[in-house]
Amino acid sequence: MKAGLIGFGKTGKAVASTLLRSKDIVLEWVVRKTDKLEFRSVPEFLGEESDEPGLIYSGAHISIGELVDLHPVDVIIDFSSESGVSYYGEEAAIRNITIISAVSHYSEETILTLKKLAERTTVFWSPNITLGINYLMIAAKTLKKIVPSIDFEIVEEHFRDKPGVSGTAKVIARNLDLDPGSIKSVRAGGIIGRHELICGFPFQTVRLVHESITREAFGNGAIFAARNLFGKKAGFYTFEELLMPYFNEVQSA
Amino acid sequence: MKAGLIGFGKTGKAVASTLLRSKDIVLEWVVRKTDKLEFRSVPEFLGEESDEPGLIYSGAHISIGELVDLHPVDVIIDFSSESGVSYYGEEAAIRNITIISAVSHYSEETILTLKKLAERTTVFWSPNITLGINYLMIAAKTLKKIVPSIDFEIVEEHFRDKPGVSGTAKVIARNLDLDPGSIKSVRAGGIIGRHELICGFPFQTVRLVHESITREAFGNGAIFAARNLFGKKAGFYTFEELLMPYFNEVQSA
Amino acid sequence: MKAGLIGFGKTGKAVASTLLRSKDIVLEWVVRKTDKLEFRSVPEFLGEESDEPGLIYSGAHISIGELVDLHPVDVIIDFSSESGVSYYGEEAAIRNITIISAVSHYSEETILTLKKLAERTTVFWSPNITLGINYLMIAAKTLKKIVPSIDFEIVEEHFRDKPGVSGTAKVIARNLDLDPGSIKSVRAGGIIGRHELICGFPFQTVRLVHESITREAFGNGAIFAARNLFGKKAGFYTFEELLMPYFNEVQSA
Amino acid sequence: MKAGLIGFGKTGKAVASTLLRSKDIVLEWVVRKTDKLEFRSVPEFLGEESDEPGLIYSGAHISIGELVDLHPVDVIIDFSSESGVSYYGEEAAIRNITIISAVSHYSEETILTLKKLAERTTVFWSPNITLGINYLMIAAKTLKKIVPSIDFEIVEEHFRDKPGVSGTAKVIARNLDLDPGSIKSVRAGGIIGRHELICGFPFQTVRLVHESITREAFGNGAIFAARNLFGKKAGFYTFEELLMPYFNEVQSA
Repeated sequence: MKAGLIGFGKTGKAVASTLLRSKDIVLEWVVRKTDKLEFRSVPEFLGEESDEPGLIYSGAHISIGELVDLHPVDVIIDFSSESGVSYYGEEAAIRNITIISAVSHYSEETILTLKKLAERTTVFWSPNITLGINYLMIAAKTLKKIVPSIDFEIVEEHFRDKPGVSGTAKVIARNLDLDPGSIKSVRAGGIIGRHELICGFPFQTVRLVHESITREAFGNGAIFAARNLFGKKAGFYTFEELLMPYFNEVQSA
Repeated sequence: MKAGLIGFGKTGKAVASTLLRSKDIVLEWVVRKTDKLEFRSVPEFLGEESDEPGLIYSGAHISIGELVDLHPVDVIIDFSSESGVSYYGEEAAIRNITIISAVSHYSEETILTLKKLAERTTVFWSPNITLGINYLMIAAKTLKKIVPSIDFEIVEEHFRDKPGVSGTAKVIARNLDLDPGSIKSVRAGGIIGRHELICGFPFQTVRLVHESITREAFGNGAIFAARNLFGKKAGFYTFEELLMPYFNEVQSA
Repeated sequence: MKAGLIGFGKTGKAVASTLLRSKDIVLEWVVRKTDKLEFRSVPEFLGEESDEPGLIYSGAHISIGELVDLHPVDVIIDFSSESGVSYYGEEAAIRNITIISAVSHYSEETILTLKKLAERTTVFWSPNITLGINYLMIAAKTLKKIVPSIDFEIVEEHFRDKPGVSGTAKVIARNLDLDPGSIKSVRAGGIIGRHELICGFPFQTVRLVHESITREAFGNGAIFAARNLFGKKAGFYTFEELLMPYFNEVQSA
Repeated sequence: MKAGLIGFGKTGKAVASTLLRSKDIVLEWVVRKTDKLEFRSVPEFLGEESDEPGLIYSGAHISIGELVDLHPVDVIIDFSSESGVSYYGEEAAIRNITIISAVSHYSEETILTLKKLAERTTVFWSPNITLGINYLMIAAKTLKKIVPSIDFEIVEEHFRDKPGVSGTAKVIARNLDLDPGSIKSVRAGGIIGRHELICGFPFQTVRLVHESITREAFGNGAIFAARNLFGKKAGFYTFEELLMPYFNEVQSA
């Protein structure tokens, strides 16, 4: 599979690393807004041993149409920001290139744009594109179905200066019909990211915990999405839809 | 639903309490081996406000046939020991009474006996009849299916004097194809029971934790089984089979 | 050492149990407000094998003076409520009986009363008389002294219906100069009591965690206090003062 | 304070970063075995904004004597390996330069060498030079003194491929007189490093947990040591000795 990456900030770089290390996905190019690092090689820049092309382009100097004519891709992976989709969306839909977006926040309007594109190509969006968080979310929803009376509490921990409540925690709360105001936010030192879901039964407690180690987890999530979207027809997909079949096929021993 | 309880040790007493407090299950009687407390009333003995009969019988003085003729039940809940089933099994099968056994260890031979009985009535067996542990086990198996390369480690913690490795941890290990020898057993002070499954991804960690608070959790597990077995045809059931439908019906939002 | 116990609620009963099981402290009597269980034997009532006297008296029918004339004690352990001290305080001071109070909340006025009594006898007060919590508090204060810039966050977890913020968490906050409003209170199922202090460094995290198993922990705290107060002259003591020497004598290997 | 750094592996680089960011310690130079990166500037190489000199030298091409003649330092910080001390030890002793070694393993012979050097200059050695771990170790020893009967269990967690039992866990075990064979080693995914000390009382549990986030924690430990050794006379020091005064000065509120 050939992939193009949109965005080359801290997370974009970590994602590029994991793409270079994956065996079945070739990083054809990276597009970023600025012309910083233009025409540099990603493997060389990141010190990764890889013979994948991975050249850096500036979106200001080349259109996505020209780029994919030169270096065609099967999938565009977007770790940029809300405006990224206006750069590549239309052209991806025309050419039936799969779109994988990991942008955290979209306005209602942009979500509509994505859904429009999904009429013509495969579109996937996950505001927290890690396998662990998405798995926990479905696992928790399943538990709620088994024991509707169970008490859920969410504690999220991040580094001292992280402003506001974790967006991921808010998504978990929404999925479990919890008041987002009930989320407990711990801010201390350099904690990278920890989400704990405390599930209180009268006589036992279940804890579902997710701990982030590095941003490469987002890259692995994008790769998981790319692999599981392969061959899927046009439509709008979420991480939950990719994981559902695994939950559904649970069989007794 | 009317229930009879076999066994009145520490766990049996806690289970009796939860049965008395449940609204849809009536505790008709308790049978124990010895004649200690014979003909005492369970609600009175446990100080529970309840007008359910719950009289204590000695298995040495009354056969199960006589007992269910006097006080018919829909389900027999067994928290005694391996030999319990020889007291009530045949009669339960004849009368189509559901059997719920929470006995931790059975020989292969007794398991065969249970499966034979299951040809005629509904038989359920769970060596750890808590909802939390059984839920975690299926959740973990699902995760293993999603990411076969994930590393699992089991740490179980119990009170200082608990001998051997936790049987529950061994069942978890077996379910995940882990070497039971890899289980880490912590023995310290008065810890009631804690099982943690550490699921290691390269860049993130998921932890699935179960903490026991009191033995009443076993009672609630038995009640969950009784409710979910209701109306099921003859056959041999495990906790996993009762939980599967909840996992299978997971739907996208 | 001979002890009398004031209060026989849920916690009082658990404390009585631990006193009966301790080898060096004899439970002479229990005083409670009501005349329920008057003249019953505590060992018999609790099912503890012990030949300690432990008779239950009603404070309405016997004065503390009469009681200690009949059954002298070295220490009075108070697990009742704010008003308890008015029953036994003056007489304890006159007879130089050590007072150990584990009452959670006292008005300023009652604290003054205790300090007045402390001019004549040994008076100890701990609103959370467990060794674990008091140890953690000093350990945390020490850490704050080592690294004043460290971030502390407190997460306390209790059963669903516990109202308000845990008093113990508030005491921890006060000891560390934290805003009590910053305490995160988790309420879920039947969690007995868990306090976690997250200590965030830029590149590492320390967690100090206390988990309650049963109320007997309070009894052991009272016994620890009784032993460590033995031979101490009149004065007002806190748990911190009993633990300080252990911290101070830390020596290099 | 002027510092020289021995060793520039993964940890050495992280330590160099923290030294460059500290305001009161100037990184004068780095010495490494190979001539890779010789004469490169550490701030430039690491992308740190700093005007500290921090030039990289090869130990093969310059002796420590020549180096400190050109660029004098107050302290030598060693994150290399056992053989490092033979490069700088003698010269440091002669010139009364403080030695801070964070080398994990030394033979008995090298420890003797260090102790010999300590007769002439200030020598500090910590096999795990993080504040968190050393703090926990003393905190645990204090708890053991308070309650000698407490049960301790050590669980250490690291990335999948870490061979053997964590050296830090072994040091903790030795400090608490525990059998190193009792340490539980969890190996899963990419866990950076987690040490948990479970302290079991009969009716409560205390957990002391240390989580590593990045290697910079070692740099901060070295800086803490440098600051606290400042002005100390010749002698052999451990982390415990630097922390002891903080434990000893604990005062009642």
